[in-house]
Amino acid sequence: MPAEHLARRQRLATLLRERGLAAAMITDLVNVRYLTGFTGSNGAVRVAEDGSAELVTDGRYRDQAAEESPDVAVTINRDLIGALAAGAAGAARVGVETHVLTVDDHARAREAYGEVALVSLDRAVEQLRVVKDESELDALRRACDISVQALDEVLAGPLLGRTEREIARDLEWTMYAKGAEAIGFETIVAAGENAAIPHHDPTDRPVGRDELLKIDFGARVDGYHADCTRTVVVGRADAWQREAYEVVRAAQQAGVDTVREGALGSDVDATVRQVLDDAGWLEHFTTGLGHGVGLQIHEDPFLRPTEPVRLERRTPLTVEPGVYVPGRGGVRIEDTLVVTDGAAELLTVATKDLLELA
Amino acid sequence: MPAEHLARRQRLATLLRERGLAAAMITDLVNVRYLTGFTGSNGAVRVAEDGSAELVTDGRYRDQAAEESPDVAVTINRDLIGALAAGAAGAARVGVETHVLTVDDHARAREAYGEVALVSLDRAVEQLRVVKDESELDALRRACDISVQALDEVLAGPLLGRTEREIARDLEWTMYAKGAEAIGFETIVAAGENAAIPHHDPTDRPVGRDELLKIDFGARVDGYHADCTRTVVVGRADAWQREAYEVVRAAQQAGVDTVREGALGSDVDATVRQVLDDAGWLEHFTTGLGHGVGLQIHEDPFLRPTEPVRLERRTPLTVEPGVYVPGRGGVRIEDTLVVTDGAAELLTVATKDLLELA
Repeated sequence: MPAEHLARRQRLATLLRERGLAAAMITDLVNVRYLTGFTGSNGAVRVAEDGSAELVTDGRYRDQAAEESPDVAVTINRDLIGALAAGAAGAARVGVETHVLTVDDHARAREAYGEVALVSLDRAVEQLRVVKDESELDALRRACDISVQALDEVLAGPLLGRTEREIARDLEWTMYAKGAEAIGFETIVAAGENAAIPHHDPTDRPVGRDELLKIDFGARVDGYHADCTRTVVVGRADAWQREAYEVVRAAQQAGVDTVREGALGSDVDATVRQVLDDAGWLEHFTTGLGHGVGLQIHEDPFLRPTEPVRLERRTPLTVEPGVYVPGRGGVRIEDTLVVTDGAAELLTVATKDLLELA
Repeated sequence: MPAEHLARRQRLATLLRERGLAAAMITDLVNVRYLTGFTGSNGAVRVAEDGSAELVTDGRYRDQAAEESPDVAVTINRDLIGALAAGAAGAARVGVETHVLTVDDHARAREAYGEVALVSLDRAVEQLRVVKDESELDALRRACDISVQALDEVLAGPLLGRTEREIARDLEWTMYAKGAEAIGFETIVAAGENAAIPHHDPTDRPVGRDELLKIDFGARVDGYHADCTRTVVVGRADAWQREAYEVVRAAQQAGVDTVREGALGSDVDATVRQVLDDAGWLEHFTTGLGHGVGLQIHEDPFLRPTEPVRLERRTPLTVEPGVYVPGRGGVRIEDTLVVTDGAAELLTVATKDLLELA
């Protein structure tokens, strides 16, 4: 991994030179991890325009920092900002992460940096993170494999009569058993009318016969998050359930088919909405269409009607349309994909045929 | 719960009047939950000096906000800061949470609030949260009960030959089965020389014979976090393990005995350090002594040599001394307690005798 971390810092250093910044003070812990490999809960890193870097953390993480970030200078100091400022003495301009830096820490930085001008980095590291390297895609593939294998086992049943919570815990347990380092986000298991709630916390409600069952879940591997949703019917689907399912399936597939290098996120969104609109279901699609995934479960790029972001190769993202009818039920189908110059690489390989299970 | 939430907002309103603030803009989600009951992932609340409140969130949470916060006006608007600013038009001074508000959001607030002066709240809500009400203590008691019951079951074994990771997952699964809504924090299971690492992520290392096994874990119930550590020997304790254990046990008990209303956190810390120092083990105590627990796993007050914070009744906190000897092993014993005007109420009721288990 040090080779990848070095390459990432060099990409950031190039950006810094372009922007006339002597260094960047990176305080977002996800970005710190991305640039150095350090996974502790307290730390910040200075990356200079020549690509050199200094990681500051506290004494608890002395050994861990040395092990995880062997190619970076490590300083132990509880005053992260003060230590980073000392390393930037004499600089004219230093970039800071104004989207995460708090007002109090900014005041501390102004004091510590003295005459150095502090300039917003404008989410520079988040932008670097959009396009993944091979080590990142590999982790994401493993996370998605574990996730869909676990789903297969849980859908083998029994499902009828078990509670949403039991099914959620069973799925999580199975992901751990298959090698997940963590559950990527709070698992959603929603039965019957609860399937109409886009983000539903599993309850003690048992799954009844002929009900929709919506499951949104994912494993984390080496920090990378799988994100997958499938909706099944426990028993026999009625006409309404089948119609809802097939329209979402068609819309989702149309979206997936639109994802490729150079496409605009807003166009993927428009494609999906057109399918839902043509079928008369658009009013029930009340959430966002999709988002990037990586070290965070939700990260750039976001697929939104108002954001004509160009999709780049090696960018993983989700496509997850749904319909939600309060009091009645809902369907969502979601895959994690990677943008290529052709058809997107599907990471969550699990059937999208309507399953009627016991 | 609405009665408790109202009482909390009224306490905040009193503080606002004392400080000459017309309102507070609360953007920290834990504080939003504390004041309104709202648990969504996006929201902010304005509490006015008369105790009235407005919760702003986005459309995903329309129903949830109405259900969780029935006694608060709910506004649906993606621009949380803009909506809250509109409600504070004409005010002279409004308090903001400068310890969590980002530089970018502060800039947005300056723009939206216009002539209104934005003043730091200086962690006002965090300070209110130190002393718990009965509903909070009740949730914490349940979280601690579930935790120690689950530990009992897992310690019943087998332990020998199982991996740290397996034991961690087993413990978590058992907490869920007993009613935990979530795992409060990443479970630490550390065997042998890994027990020397204060915060150790469970690995595939199996537990060997006659090894120390340190387990730091806790369930979450209604948002409240239990925090408990026990260290056992799997097999027979040798003289060194026994000495390490007994000195930590004596130090921890001395600390627990010092916790009461009016005591200073720094005095509790000094008491524990004295016991470790007298026994010649102080150099191996390299972490903090303890912290408040509640809606966050780590919150005010913190027990530190340099912080003479006065302990107040109804304040839950941890006392968790340890010794950590790199390459060899370590011991930590931790309880969650509640400060009273007499002996502290022990919430994590589990033996602290040295257990030699199979």
